[in-house]
Amino acid sequence: MAEAAPLRVGMIGIGTVGAGTWRVLRRNQEAIRGRAGRGIEVVAVAARNLARAAAVLEGAEGVELTDDPLRVATHPGVDVLVEVAGGTGPAREWVLAAIAHGKHVVTANKALLAEHGGEVFAAAQRHGVAVAYEGAVAVSIPIVKALREGLTANRIEWVAGIVNGTTNFILTRMRDAGLTFDEALAEAQALGYAEADPAFDVDGVDAAHKATLLAANAFGMPVRFADAHVEGIRTLQALDVACAERLGYRVKLLGIARREAEGVELRVHPALVPAGHLLAQVNGAMNAVLVKGDASGVTMYYGAGAGSEPTASAVIADLVDLARLQCQCSQGAARPSVPPLAFHAQADLPVLGVAAVRTRHYLRVPLADGAAVAQVPLVLADCGVAVQSLVRHAVPGDAAAPVHALVVTHPALDADAQRAAERLGALPACAGAVARLRVEVLE
Amino acid sequence: MAEAAPLRVGMIGIGTVGAGTWRVLRRNQEAIRGRAGRGIEVVAVAARNLARAAAVLEGAEGVELTDDPLRVATHPGVDVLVEVAGGTGPAREWVLAAIAHGKHVVTANKALLAEHGGEVFAAAQRHGVAVAYEGAVAVSIPIVKALREGLTANRIEWVAGIVNGTTNFILTRMRDAGLTFDEALAEAQALGYAEADPAFDVDGVDAAHKATLLAANAFGMPVRFADAHVEGIRTLQALDVACAERLGYRVKLLGIARREAEGVELRVHPALVPAGHLLAQVNGAMNAVLVKGDASGVTMYYGAGAGSEPTASAVIADLVDLARLQCQCSQGAARPSVPPLAFHAQADLPVLGVAAVRTRHYLRVPLADGAAVAQVPLVLADCGVAVQSLVRHAVPGDAAAPVHALVVTHPALDADAQRAAERLGALPACAGAVARLRVEVLE
Repeated sequence: MAEAAPLRVGMIGIGTVGAGTWRVLRRNQEAIRGRAGRGIEVVAVAARNLARAAAVLEGAEGVELTDDPLRVATHPGVDVLVEVAGGTGPAREWVLAAIAHGKHVVTANKALLAEHGGEVFAAAQRHGVAVAYEGAVAVSIPIVKALREGLTANRIEWVAGIVNGTTNFILTRMRDAGLTFDEALAEAQALGYAEADPAFDVDGVDAAHKATLLAANAFGMPVRFADAHVEGIRTLQALDVACAERLGYRVKLLGIARREAEGVELRVHPALVPAGHLLAQVNGAMNAVLVKGDASGVTMYYGAGAGSEPTASAVIADLVDLARLQCQCSQGAARPSVPPLAFHAQADLPVLGVAAVRTRHYLRVPLADGAAVAQVPLVLADCGVAVQSLVRHAVPGDAAAPVHALVVTHPALDADAQRAAERLGALPACAGAVARLRVEVLE
Repeated sequence: MAEAAPLRVGMIGIGTVGAGTWRVLRRNQEAIRGRAGRGIEVVAVAARNLARAAAVLEGAEGVELTDDPLRVATHPGVDVLVEVAGGTGPAREWVLAAIAHGKHVVTANKALLAEHGGEVFAAAQRHGVAVAYEGAVAVSIPIVKALREGLTANRIEWVAGIVNGTTNFILTRMRDAGLTFDEALAEAQALGYAEADPAFDVDGVDAAHKATLLAANAFGMPVRFADAHVEGIRTLQALDVACAERLGYRVKLLGIARREAEGVELRVHPALVPAGHLLAQVNGAMNAVLVKGDASGVTMYYGAGAGSEPTASAVIADLVDLARLQCQCSQGAARPSVPPLAFHAQADLPVLGVAAVRTRHYLRVPLADGAAVAQVPLVLADCGVAVQSLVRHAVPGDAAAPVHALVVTHPALDADAQRAAERLGALPACAGAVARLRVEVLE
């Protein structure tokens, strides 16, 4: 059987990801072709800076270069649009235009899919084209494929992960070198792990985009970014990182989606993870996602969370999937075989408010007088929160509060733990802000 | 578009894996159908013990029960054969018969594929049917899918993993409780982690079956089980597990496939892994596989390595892939989209003999006299092996050899390290067997 004609790619964006995709496609073209069974050729590229684009393309022939993304998105000679420019405004238009013109879409744009996924995926299913986005979540780690294909036998119970490299780098430095958040952020920015405006990352928004997509694929629910509970690490104190260490935990920014009887939890926030847990060993800019399935048990997927070639690896894997779709007959293109959100139809599962979430908690109560430690479990019990461990932690540098009570609770309702934290803060002996972080054991 | 008719499954074997597959298919049938877009129905089962089979099937209607596997393999009402009986004799016949009758095959049988994979995959490609075997390697962890699909952008540099749960359980107990191999094996057998005849597992054969399949998918080479270098853990001493710990390492049975300029390394053997490495945290019966791709960097996949429902999870994931293959036209079935060994054609890469492999080594030299420690690096240098660290380790319980020299070398040729071990054993001061284990850093 003769080899099929190459899969023709139109790419919007020639920045970090676009350039990486171009380079890897060229460097590994023989191996990619040997696996896909046909060539994969970039035939059109849209970029804002045409001179830069030309430099990246190194004079390659047969590539139409333009500053008009819609030209590429609707190009008659393009089978699949690769959208790697980012953003949620124009990118939405380009992607919808490509779909309306019967083209598949491959994107790494988690913000776009988290905010407009419902619309995009519905349009794709109506037009019978694929939307692939392995590069949008934990880049080179094929976690979207694991959820959409590898784990299809399972009723997924929960998904939890470290899915933002910027914050994980910061947290690793805070723990390894005792840095404050501001010091670690400055280091991250100097090394290129954080943007000049780091809000998206440090405030947990990027992690929430990804957690939203993981939840949708795990539970067969719609994309519900607006309902996610999102907390970042901007207010995390170096002292809490040190206290967590003392108690045998590490602080990580986790994205968690968990199925409960009444609905689904969808939350991003810093959490204490037992130091011996695999997730606690995920350091620097690396990412990892754990999935608990009722048949599979726990599986974990680990690797780079960002970067030019790791993202390109994911984008190209999506292209190879599309290239391999073949029909035994000669008519037209095969229908995409995998629904974009794993399930053919979404179930309208409610997202639970965070007040109803039940987890263990860590609390640190600054006290003027060590004797006041005894009051802490009483206040907690009064709020329906049981104490698992209580430690007197001396903080010699804190003249107003030389003793901090460190508490790890048994599982408690978030609303109860919040109320307990407020009441502890109101104690006469309390001489500073009460810190509260959730504790996740993840078994 | 009307839902397609169910995918009809014929299953050979209703033991641990077969029964698990049946149970999970029934328990999660709605979610599976919601993802696959059609039902998946077992229509025929072959088993040696029909009474047991009937008990597992709990009187389900519409399932033909027989003691004739070939009947199921060639059954006109079956689309895909699930071979979960195991073995390499009759299983080969059944699988080839199913392929010859135009049926896809899903199997968890690594022994069959390691020994007869060339023949089986060639037959499948000739007949245009799929052979899927996610359950054959690290069961529920979708590692075959990661190599065949998720990482297709990459030139894979190496694959390394803990892929046998029996030996990893034994090694974990030797390290955690200081047990000897025999003690830990007895414990494993009592708990059901090891067979009455454990040779396949403890001698590394099972791990070699899996490493062979991983290598073939990673490098686009044929299945070369006969060329693999295989060493198990039967002769591993408790003292070496303790010394490794002292030096900052853990002993693991690793399956390694690595691309070199001259060919491919394919080896299974115990190895020291740095205690801080992720692989060193993989304990008990769990499995993990690391893959280094030139674009992706290192990714790791972790989860259960065996078990009824974890294996069923993998088998059913393969079935869902097949169920999802649809043609937009009405003619016949879609061609399988993924080549069984990732590449459409295999490259005839030579498997390098182990003598040419270059790794770091751990050596333990029992000495009658501590002063002889000084001779050790001289012998090593004479054999072209450079010492990275040398430690005098007191063994008070060894009257003949109260001091053991512990060496970790720089990377050296296996043949040179082997020669050095023999020469060290011939030293007058050497008063016991010299232990030698490879050290793998895996970056």
